[in-house]
Amino acid sequence: MVTLADLQVRQLGECRHESPLAKYIAARRTNDHYVDESDRVLFDDTVHLVQDHGVPLTELPTLEPGGPRRQVFFPPGRTKVGIVTCGGLCPGLNDVIRGLVMELNTHYGVTDVVGFRNGYAGLVPAHGYEPIALTTERVASINMQGGTILGTSRGAQDSEVMVDRLVELGIDILFVIGGDGSIRGASKIAAVARGRGLDLSVIGIPKTIDNDIPFIGQSFGFQTAFTVAAQSIAAAQVEAQSAVNGVGLVQLMGRHAGFIACYAALANHHADFVLIPEVPFALDGESGFLAALQRRVAERGSAVVVVAEGAGQDLMADRAGTDASGNRKLGDIGRYLEAAIVGHYRALGRELTLKYLKPSYSIRSVPAKAFDSVYCVRLAQAAAHAGMAGRTDMVVGRRHNRFVHVPIDIVVSHRNEVAPDGDLWLSVLESTAQPPEMR
Amino acid sequence: MVTLADLQVRQLGECRHESPLAKYIAARRTNDHYVDESDRVLFDDTVHLVQDHGVPLTELPTLEPGGPRRQVFFPPGRTKVGIVTCGGLCPGLNDVIRGLVMELNTHYGVTDVVGFRNGYAGLVPAHGYEPIALTTERVASINMQGGTILGTSRGAQDSEVMVDRLVELGIDILFVIGGDGSIRGASKIAAVARGRGLDLSVIGIPKTIDNDIPFIGQSFGFQTAFTVAAQSIAAAQVEAQSAVNGVGLVQLMGRHAGFIACYAALANHHADFVLIPEVPFALDGESGFLAALQRRVAERGSAVVVVAEGAGQDLMADRAGTDASGNRKLGDIGRYLEAAIVGHYRALGRELTLKYLKPSYSIRSVPAKAFDSVYCVRLAQAAAHAGMAGRTDMVVGRRHNRFVHVPIDIVVSHRNEVAPDGDLWLSVLESTAQPPEMR
Amino acid sequence: MVTLADLQVRQLGECRHESPLAKYIAARRTNDHYVDESDRVLFDDTVHLVQDHGVPLTELPTLEPGGPRRQVFFPPGRTKVGIVTCGGLCPGLNDVIRGLVMELNTHYGVTDVVGFRNGYAGLVPAHGYEPIALTTERVASINMQGGTILGTSRGAQDSEVMVDRLVELGIDILFVIGGDGSIRGASKIAAVARGRGLDLSVIGIPKTIDNDIPFIGQSFGFQTAFTVAAQSIAAAQVEAQSAVNGVGLVQLMGRHAGFIACYAALANHHADFVLIPEVPFALDGESGFLAALQRRVAERGSAVVVVAEGAGQDLMADRAGTDASGNRKLGDIGRYLEAAIVGHYRALGRELTLKYLKPSYSIRSVPAKAFDSVYCVRLAQAAAHAGMAGRTDMVVGRRHNRFVHVPIDIVVSHRNEVAPDGDLWLSVLESTAQPPEMR
Amino acid sequence: MVTLADLQVRQLGECRHESPLAKYIAARRTNDHYVDESDRVLFDDTVHLVQDHGVPLTELPTLEPGGPRRQVFFPPGRTKVGIVTCGGLCPGLNDVIRGLVMELNTHYGVTDVVGFRNGYAGLVPAHGYEPIALTTERVASINMQGGTILGTSRGAQDSEVMVDRLVELGIDILFVIGGDGSIRGASKIAAVARGRGLDLSVIGIPKTIDNDIPFIGQSFGFQTAFTVAAQSIAAAQVEAQSAVNGVGLVQLMGRHAGFIACYAALANHHADFVLIPEVPFALDGESGFLAALQRRVAERGSAVVVVAEGAGQDLMADRAGTDASGNRKLGDIGRYLEAAIVGHYRALGRELTLKYLKPSYSIRSVPAKAFDSVYCVRLAQAAAHAGMAGRTDMVVGRRHNRFVHVPIDIVVSHRNEVAPDGDLWLSVLESTAQPPEMR
Repeated sequence: MVTLADLQVRQLGECRHESPLAKYIAARRTNDHYVDESDRVLFDDTVHLVQDHGVPLTELPTLEPGGPRRQVFFPPGRTKVGIVTCGGLCPGLNDVIRGLVMELNTHYGVTDVVGFRNGYAGLVPAHGYEPIALTTERVASINMQGGTILGTSRGAQDSEVMVDRLVELGIDILFVIGGDGSIRGASKIAAVARGRGLDLSVIGIPKTIDNDIPFIGQSFGFQTAFTVAAQSIAAAQVEAQSAVNGVGLVQLMGRHAGFIACYAALANHHADFVLIPEVPFALDGESGFLAALQRRVAERGSAVVVVAEGAGQDLMADRAGTDASGNRKLGDIGRYLEAAIVGHYRALGRELTLKYLKPSYSIRSVPAKAFDSVYCVRLAQAAAHAGMAGRTDMVVGRRHNRFVHVPIDIVVSHRNEVAPDGDLWLSVLESTAQPPEMR
Repeated sequence: MVTLADLQVRQLGECRHESPLAKYIAARRTNDHYVDESDRVLFDDTVHLVQDHGVPLTELPTLEPGGPRRQVFFPPGRTKVGIVTCGGLCPGLNDVIRGLVMELNTHYGVTDVVGFRNGYAGLVPAHGYEPIALTTERVASINMQGGTILGTSRGAQDSEVMVDRLVELGIDILFVIGGDGSIRGASKIAAVARGRGLDLSVIGIPKTIDNDIPFIGQSFGFQTAFTVAAQSIAAAQVEAQSAVNGVGLVQLMGRHAGFIACYAALANHHADFVLIPEVPFALDGESGFLAALQRRVAERGSAVVVVAEGAGQDLMADRAGTDASGNRKLGDIGRYLEAAIVGHYRALGRELTLKYLKPSYSIRSVPAKAFDSVYCVRLAQAAAHAGMAGRTDMVVGRRHNRFVHVPIDIVVSHRNEVAPDGDLWLSVLESTAQPPEMR
Repeated sequence: MVTLADLQVRQLGECRHESPLAKYIAARRTNDHYVDESDRVLFDDTVHLVQDHGVPLTELPTLEPGGPRRQVFFPPGRTKVGIVTCGGLCPGLNDVIRGLVMELNTHYGVTDVVGFRNGYAGLVPAHGYEPIALTTERVASINMQGGTILGTSRGAQDSEVMVDRLVELGIDILFVIGGDGSIRGASKIAAVARGRGLDLSVIGIPKTIDNDIPFIGQSFGFQTAFTVAAQSIAAAQVEAQSAVNGVGLVQLMGRHAGFIACYAALANHHADFVLIPEVPFALDGESGFLAALQRRVAERGSAVVVVAEGAGQDLMADRAGTDASGNRKLGDIGRYLEAAIVGHYRALGRELTLKYLKPSYSIRSVPAKAFDSVYCVRLAQAAAHAGMAGRTDMVVGRRHNRFVHVPIDIVVSHRNEVAPDGDLWLSVLESTAQPPEMR
Repeated sequence: MVTLADLQVRQLGECRHESPLAKYIAARRTNDHYVDESDRVLFDDTVHLVQDHGVPLTELPTLEPGGPRRQVFFPPGRTKVGIVTCGGLCPGLNDVIRGLVMELNTHYGVTDVVGFRNGYAGLVPAHGYEPIALTTERVASINMQGGTILGTSRGAQDSEVMVDRLVELGIDILFVIGGDGSIRGASKIAAVARGRGLDLSVIGIPKTIDNDIPFIGQSFGFQTAFTVAAQSIAAAQVEAQSAVNGVGLVQLMGRHAGFIACYAALANHHADFVLIPEVPFALDGESGFLAALQRRVAERGSAVVVVAEGAGQDLMADRAGTDASGNRKLGDIGRYLEAAIVGHYRALGRELTLKYLKPSYSIRSVPAKAFDSVYCVRLAQAAAHAGMAGRTDMVVGRRHNRFVHVPIDIVVSHRNEVAPDGDLWLSVLESTAQPPEMR
């Protein structure tokens, strides 16, 4: 079980500078805008958890709330900041960049913000990518564009080299917008800096289009992603319904977690089957997927199948042999299912019109829709506050409708998944009326 | 302080029928899909609240979770259901209707569902509106349309007459989709039925485009509403920036709560001022709104002002005299501000191009966007479970990422508002950089 | 050269019934709503064509204008109509169906309209698809859905059997909404009916998402198609610009004609290369496509390539051997180019990030956007007038801003293509600044 | 009747410089990309016009085609260009600016392009607006924004002062993007320059969201405008259908021409009445609008009325007295109809729910949709060619699917209107089934 100590966010030292945000708070009757240092957010909220474990109330795991502090660590107006975006595209990256620059500039007087280009590679001089200045003019309208104006790349770089570069440039706070691996990388940078005794704050803003990072409520870009994904399900449905024995098969993102598949299917209202990594299924047999699909097509004239890219990986291992290397590479479940369905109908001698859609890039590259846009700017504000307050080796998250600080160790300790016995999956089962077990 | 007793949902009697949802749950390893009757959701979650009040853990206020029960009250397949939509339009009404019909039909075998037309008036025979049959075919695609296929109307009707009508039609469960007033009306219907000893379940699904009903997390349609509202702010911004000393003034919904104004402004990124009912402001004087607006226009060449319809009501009372009748009618703050700004610039002898937008109906009438679509179907599922389980005089809500049952008395006890010292308003202040106090 | 005789539309016989549209026209000052039988639309309009060929003005090829006739052939109110949709999906099918039903019903009192299901197969009893009644209630909102409510299928059916079926059902007018092949099929049906001396009107409404049918101005659904296609180019661009040496490769529809590729690229503004069937190109060599692409990537850091599915077919024949059978099947130019580009960069030892998008179904299945919606309803109105007036073996088209009647023989005589020396292709060259010749 | 001489575009002098576009054309087999100086586009195309007037074929009115010339007037690479946007916003302004800058830069080597700010006021030094440099970087993504990055203003300025300023800045070509009045202003500038013997080319790109400028086919932004307008009609319809005796009343743009109202109504499919300036109507009496509306509401339960802002002006003159000044100001027909309808139902003692929408700014300010985006870039290309070729005192237009040059005198000689006896209005009457005469 997670303990209070695990959740303690590292702090570089004493906060000695008056926060410029005083102007928003002094005039108000209460001081509640400021976060009281003794305030904590409960880590979990169901009574029975508390009761079952007999933990005293005062020792319950709690998280530090995000938000502006009265005293900040870095001197406003004299702090230098770097921003880097890593990994695959996700709607909202430019909103976060814009939000950081605006918040630092407007409220902390921090005008010296640079963007490192093309992911962590931009922190390694050998690649030759010069950082670019991020002014408020430069970022004013970037939220209308998808992608990231900084460019991105995958893969790790040498932490010592990156810290050398940060020192060379005089960076005080580094904001890392990236996924699982990049957040681990941020933790290594923080560790190297700590080892050298440097006052370098490293703040992560978790990015995962699959929504599989824990402790952050919903990840930014996720709502935009399933909104666009639902359009592909609609397209598949139109194609299926316009054909004789039409089957629309849509492969969506979701390597380890089926959130996009579940939400997009619920939003669309018309999916007949949702297949996700968390819920295994068999193809053959009376209670298998193919027989269930055949029954649905016979009943309704057509069917729509939504499959997350990480679903049914065991099926391909069984038939095609397991992967040789240690690093497991995902089999192409979409094409595998397409072949299986076509083969099934051919064996039956029945007509079939299957249309296969895989809308990956057209989802990742769109600008953030309104909700995500709001969420990104607020995440960026919370991140700016955390960095200015001298926090490090943490990410900003959201829990119980509050922004929180989460140590990176905790964030990368496990993945967020669709609980097969939780209410989201139940909603999907209720909506699709697919067999709960296809084994 | 709210006590445990206040939160207790009324229950018609013992649940004796096996739930047809057993098929989704029996095959799984755990039984967690079913809600344990002893399970509770904490009413509030910050440790200091608990600590300050010294309430024993076991007596903390908790809510009953939503979801399917193993035993249900009404006999599946032999239950008759009515649905009514009341009050102003809100994105998602048809999604909720569709979700109820689908869930009841597919999972409880309830095929006898009728829709009452034109709000509560449809429950009063004198109006002559016959209820319409809601089959799965009829509702299959209604989510693509805005509005409500049942029609709606405002205003209360005689509860005794409505209960007579429900009895006449043999209705077991009445789902009321409506706002504050309509939910109170639902409670009266439940009370009359209770007084007569009838086994009538009345379940509310709170509808408020302003997001001002408490205990339901976000109200359905709210995200769609602020997404569309943000487009009007964008239009105002384009007009303002294309003109000499351009001011874009956008009046949005929000009689008592400024949520739409706050979220739409954050989503748009470019608002310069947000004015909401919860935060009073003065027009004149050095620190008043007009001077602040003038400074911003001078600085940036243009400005965008977002005002909720309930904002600044005190200003109009001061100048135009208070309202005579008891029922306070809102003054038109948009037109009032327009005149004030135009007058201010005329007095200064400066050029001004003011464009005023008030996009009310074009927001209320759109189909729900993806997130709200998901939320509506899940709310409908939870409502169907509650009704079938024999709950009554309650609404379905969402709290701490769980669907919950909330007694109507509690729901109508106060309004949800933007806390002037909360983090949402702080985000708005950070984003607009408007003066925190304009007095 | 096309002669006047070629353009003469067949007419079943004398028009003896007063048109019910008289009410729209009688009250007006002029009679111009009615089409004068002597009126003709010039087949071509540039003076030099006339001058070069010395054709007398009175013998210039002209088309019969569409629109309501004062006298119609079929008796209003006692006519029976059938509608069939054939071939691949295209935005606007349901708009045309709706338009036909509404026009026939409202203005000609024709309430007996049936829809044949699943293309021409629905006209062949052996397939067992019963026609469905198309009432105004049934079609009222179908324009909000993509696809066709009638279903569709590809392939021809026996004309004699189909005419038997039409006679059996008492159909007077058959509207065929379909492509090249289906329109030929419509002509065969008309010929069989003519051979039997039947008063059967067969009116085609040309459907081609590729816009490659001549004499119809722009085909319905085309604007919607390139609007949606432009979004994929935008996605490819975002992905390309966010990566190191990023190349976005988008394969669009266009078997014989590159219109969608050209318009989508112009709409998007950011394509670097457009490859279409009408303009051959070489891959290798200093002036070939790969070298040009490499130069553009070096210059701008990334590039977007738009390729129509019918482009570069000669390249694949050269390398992979020609197709054995008579019926040429298209090679997969998208995947072919992907491999070629990846191979080219690998050979150079340079980094490359290529993202390949092929958005076919998500384009075909969307509801028609506003312009196409208008165009569909007007095409349907013109088709209804033509059918009621007893025209047959023709399609409705649009030329010089007028609706016209075009004999099917003429329509299928050749394809509409992007002229390599025309102003559309020049606009594309100007917009992309790609080398005009890559040989 | 328009004569050939009227259509002659002014030419500053002999074209002596080789066009840089040679690279696109030399390599091709034919020379057809170049416009032959003897080529002409027929001014009108119906045979009967020619026959009725007995005009010899060689003397038919024709227009000069747009497009690149082999020889251009201004020296590529050494030409200085100015751009100004005037009047109300219209979707596509930024697309045209971008298109001009890109074409001039990429194909004519013209890098010295300035944008005058805030309309013609930007050409008058006294206003103090400095022109801004328009580089390809600056304009690369401006098409994603609505409005005009140059700002705009209404009203004329002194032509002599403006020519002084153009001379001072060394401008060779001035592109004016504006409406009726601004195009007249451009002609005055050209006349002043001509009077001084200056080689100043003034090229207009007609802008009119109402589509009321003749000789340009469809005006840019028009399709975007009616697409967005159709959404307001949809909103009005949803509101009307959800209410008891619901009437949705939508006022759209269209001072003199009802094109937006007609197209938006056709696109939406569900309007019951369309009222435009070109077709007068009476309110009262058995055959008047109010009685017709009442019948429709009784029949269908609700109705949607679309009214162009210039419609029914005679009604208000009758009741409220004619306008005193010479410059006629439009009465507010929307509010007038609202009052009339409410009064009519009140007099009848019948329930009515009227919702009034007037979406002006939200239409004008959106970015251009795909079709308009294509059209704008092509118009800009044609304008750039015309300017470089030394044409002046003309606008670029489109006729018979070709870009053409039209002298300004001709363009401002009359307005484009919806012909009451033309096929567009007939389509509207067919679609709405409203009474053709409401007098």
